[in-house]
Amino acid sequence: MAGGGEFKRDQNYITTRITADGRDGFPVEPGRYRLIIARACPWANRAAIVRRLLGLEGVLSMGIAGPLHDERSWSFDLDPGGKDPVLGIERLQEAFFKRDPDYPRGITVPALVDIPTGQVVTNDFARITLDLGSEWAAHHRDGAPDLYPEKLRDEIEDVAGKVFTDLNNGVYKCGFATSQEAYDKAYRQLWDRLDWLEERLTTRRYLVGDSITEADVRLFPTLVRFDAVYHGHFKCNRHKLTEMPALWAYTRDLFQTPGFGDTIDFEQIKTHYYGVHRTVNPTGIVPQGPDPSGWLTPHGRDELGGRPFGDGTAPGPPPAGERVPPLV
Amino acid sequence: MAGGGEFKRDQNYITTRITADGRDGFPVEPGRYRLIIARACPWANRAAIVRRLLGLEGVLSMGIAGPLHDERSWSFDLDPGGKDPVLGIERLQEAFFKRDPDYPRGITVPALVDIPTGQVVTNDFARITLDLGSEWAAHHRDGAPDLYPEKLRDEIEDVAGKVFTDLNNGVYKCGFATSQEAYDKAYRQLWDRLDWLEERLTTRRYLVGDSITEADVRLFPTLVRFDAVYHGHFKCNRHKLTEMPALWAYTRDLFQTPGFGDTIDFEQIKTHYYGVHRTVNPTGIVPQGPDPSGWLTPHGRDELGGRPFGDGTAPGPPPAGERVPPLV
Repeated sequence: MAGGGEFKRDQNYITTRITADGRDGFPVEPGRYRLIIARACPWANRAAIVRRLLGLEGVLSMGIAGPLHDERSWSFDLDPGGKDPVLGIERLQEAFFKRDPDYPRGITVPALVDIPTGQVVTNDFARITLDLGSEWAAHHRDGAPDLYPEKLRDEIEDVAGKVFTDLNNGVYKCGFATSQEAYDKAYRQLWDRLDWLEERLTTRRYLVGDSITEADVRLFPTLVRFDAVYHGHFKCNRHKLTEMPALWAYTRDLFQTPGFGDTIDFEQIKTHYYGVHRTVNPTGIVPQGPDPSGWLTPHGRDELGGRPFGDGTAPGPPPAGERVPPLV
Repeated sequence: MAGGGEFKRDQNYITTRITADGRDGFPVEPGRYRLIIARACPWANRAAIVRRLLGLEGVLSMGIAGPLHDERSWSFDLDPGGKDPVLGIERLQEAFFKRDPDYPRGITVPALVDIPTGQVVTNDFARITLDLGSEWAAHHRDGAPDLYPEKLRDEIEDVAGKVFTDLNNGVYKCGFATSQEAYDKAYRQLWDRLDWLEERLTTRRYLVGDSITEADVRLFPTLVRFDAVYHGHFKCNRHKLTEMPALWAYTRDLFQTPGFGDTIDFEQIKTHYYGVHRTVNPTGIVPQGPDPSGWLTPHGRDELGGRPFGDGTAPGPPPAGERVPPLV
């Protein structure tokens, strides 16, 4: 926390990259790395979505940490014996310490782990999705979309930058503010940005261009969590997402698109936020609401045109071990 | 708190009554008593509404405690000099101690205070509204409605009893539960009751009979607070009130009826709940939402028929010193 009660996110990550040419010592190689996520985490959600959209499940396995963690680490309590079956570790911290025994910062997901040595290669969430799109291109499925088209990159980064500051991170600035002033400021920024998005998405099916891009991948994880956790737990409560017609239809459209909704586990999301942030929710009690049944209702966004996967196609269903529970 | 993490409300009140015949030593008398409320409190809200509907403002003055109180007492921090201008006290506790220097229970509103002696006569909220309707009948305004008609009393008590247990007090059982089990149980009871009310109010304009009664007076204060505080702060979040079509229209209808909405101050409501319950909201930060602009939209409930005030008429506007701020 900085002065004035404002939440400041530590944005220092391990910036080593897994690249096609292996220039950082970690070449792209099928079966060599493991993507560690938690269903709860919106930053990890991006990586899980991109892996699905690009069809990398067969070459990059995925480990799923449980929704609760203590101050030190995410842990593999969902797995048999409480250990990740590939890495053989109980806590993600172990893989960070293999990389650096004195690793001083937060143990975050997503993290890419080098399976032979058990060490984290990178936890740089913003770079991970871009590298999955570019460096791993040789291993993409047939029909994988281009999520970061050359000609749209400036616009994607411009839009996504605004969305990061005011919304992706903005919900945390609302929820973790420790002064009324800091909260009020974050709330105003948040809703100005949501109003801007509502207007933009009233006439456009996707955020940038007419197909799904990185911009949508970065926006969706926040919107899909909005009513479940940010609205109440983080006091982002001018309206529910369901009260913002374009945003709600946009998010439902993506939710119903293969690769998006099939990465979402609302129980884990709620269990994490309400269970871990005891400074916000001292009892750790997890609300039963909201009713999620609306997610599968028709969205009508096809009328706006757009080609979800551009010249590509939708991914198939997720691998058996990675299915999320049904909505209700 | 009882075992199992369930919230138990202390329902022991001072049961002395102000009656027409003065049998408890406190006869009805214009100008002699002062009703103390807080805009925040739903139990006090009932008394404020009934006083308005029956036109008792001229014979029974009203003092308004501020939204924040400490563990010991509501206080008059909204008044000039921080003192109630009629009783001359800073804290409501003083009036309870004048009644009983060892008063052992919570300092609650509504409270009726005998102005000459400065002592609380009663804080028995359920009895207060009934006595305003019957014992104070000689002082009702022309056109005052009968809120407790003889032939509807059994039905009013039956319905209001269910509403008390599952909803009026049920929201507190959700919000103050200290175990997941206690919360889950209270949540189920709450939503079963709200579903029952939604169905009942789909075809009936008012809760019992075809005019406003005590049953509506007891239901309204909880519903009007629902989205502002119970939905998020107390985790009553299956839906917002605005997502329950009949309940939302019913509550809007009453809100727009003189005597109901003109007793509501959403800022004081939010400031109280979020500021006082630090075990639920440690930072005391008050959310800016929800957007209240919907309260004044058309409700269409006239189509269901009904005569709001029966053979009576609507009350005039509130006295100048008792006006609540505009909605937005």
